[in-house]
Amino acid sequence: MESLTLVIGNKNYSSWSLRPWLLLKQFGIAFDEARIPLFQADSAQALREASPSGRVPVLRDANLVVWDSLAICEYLAEKFPHLPLWPAASDARAVARAVSAEMHAGFSALRENMSMNCRKHLPGRGRAPGVQDDIDRITAIWRDCRKRYGAGGDMLFGKFSIADAMFAPVTFRFVTYGVDTDPVSAAYIKAVQALTPMQDWLAAARVETEVISQSER
Amino acid sequence: MESLTLVIGNKNYSSWSLRPWLLLKQFGIAFDEARIPLFQADSAQALREASPSGRVPVLRDANLVVWDSLAICEYLAEKFPHLPLWPAASDARAVARAVSAEMHAGFSALRENMSMNCRKHLPGRGRAPGVQDDIDRITAIWRDCRKRYGAGGDMLFGKFSIADAMFAPVTFRFVTYGVDTDPVSAAYIKAVQALTPMQDWLAAARVETEVISQSER
Repeated sequence: MESLTLVIGNKNYSSWSLRPWLLLKQFGIAFDEARIPLFQADSAQALREASPSGRVPVLRDANLVVWDSLAICEYLAEKFPHLPLWPAASDARAVARAVSAEMHAGFSALRENMSMNCRKHLPGRGRAPGVQDDIDRITAIWRDCRKRYGAGGDMLFGKFSIADAMFAPVTFRFVTYGVDTDPVSAAYIKAVQALTPMQDWLAAARVETEVISQSER
Repeated sequence: MESLTLVIGNKNYSSWSLRPWLLLKQFGIAFDEARIPLFQADSAQALREASPSGRVPVLRDANLVVWDSLAICEYLAEKFPHLPLWPAASDARAVARAVSAEMHAGFSALRENMSMNCRKHLPGRGRAPGVQDDIDRITAIWRDCRKRYGAGGDMLFGKFSIADAMFAPVTFRFVTYGVDTDPVSAAYIKAVQALTPMQDWLAAARVETEVISQSER
């Protein structure tokens, strides 16, 4: 048994769960995984018992319970200071936090209308008012980060960081809903999709048996 | 001229602007203030020029531009490591980040229906579906933090921290809309309202001349 346990939802649907899971995997941090299938008869009860907010993801570290995807990432960055979970340079780290926070609180039109469903292909669906504005802003963030800070690799700040973990669910959404992007964004999506843990997550999502109708989300 | 400039919106309405402003004031960090009145004919243009996301608050530190209320708070915590912007104990800090992040991304029913309007008194208004659930969760967070970590003062983690800055706009909302709470939450609201910078913010909001109708928010 590892000291860290990450409680997540369905891999096919729980975009917020993917973020800290991917971060842990990318940096080779050992953890136990606990899964609460969402939108089932007993989900609400299980979530209330596992999480102060009634939501996943939740990280347990001995007696400490940390919830919320971004707060978990910050906790891990502090717990493993020798690992570059955030970019090392102060300016880059400040911008990485800004784009991560913007993703964390924003893009509600995209999140509502293009909910994560990573094993599906639904091109053209989800084109509601406001969605294109969200797509435009997200891809502008990606182009700006890649241009200003991306030189050392193919992630937003060169090497993989928390910022990439925060946007990873969006790359699944763009693939599922067939969103066309500029070449820089398309290359970034491809690089994120190619990460081994992303492929593992998708493979696990494909064998999950729960099906949630769009109207329940 | 100070090295830091914080760009904010109208003090009466811009709940997100209040957070880093209050944090800077409470810790005596010098900064210049720039104000962009929201919902005016030229607001959108001014916001686009000031902020990558088109939103306030924005912090400028020489050539660095940091946006989003939570990312600005994290940047300041790193820039002034001798100041206890986050609680000092690792566990308390992790929980402070969790409640701050939950506030940052959540409570959309409350935010939509009880928009900040700190100079007004509108008791009974804003009681839409979902709002009471948000109120119940927020006050549960306050009671939990006060009980587990509040011993050293009258703030969520004893002394004032980023977590209090994140919830400060909610205390204005609860006063404006006459939200009744449990005694622990009521005492916390009173303590936040009594902070000198909160009184200064309210006084400045009262002399602002812009009036935004509810339908524009």
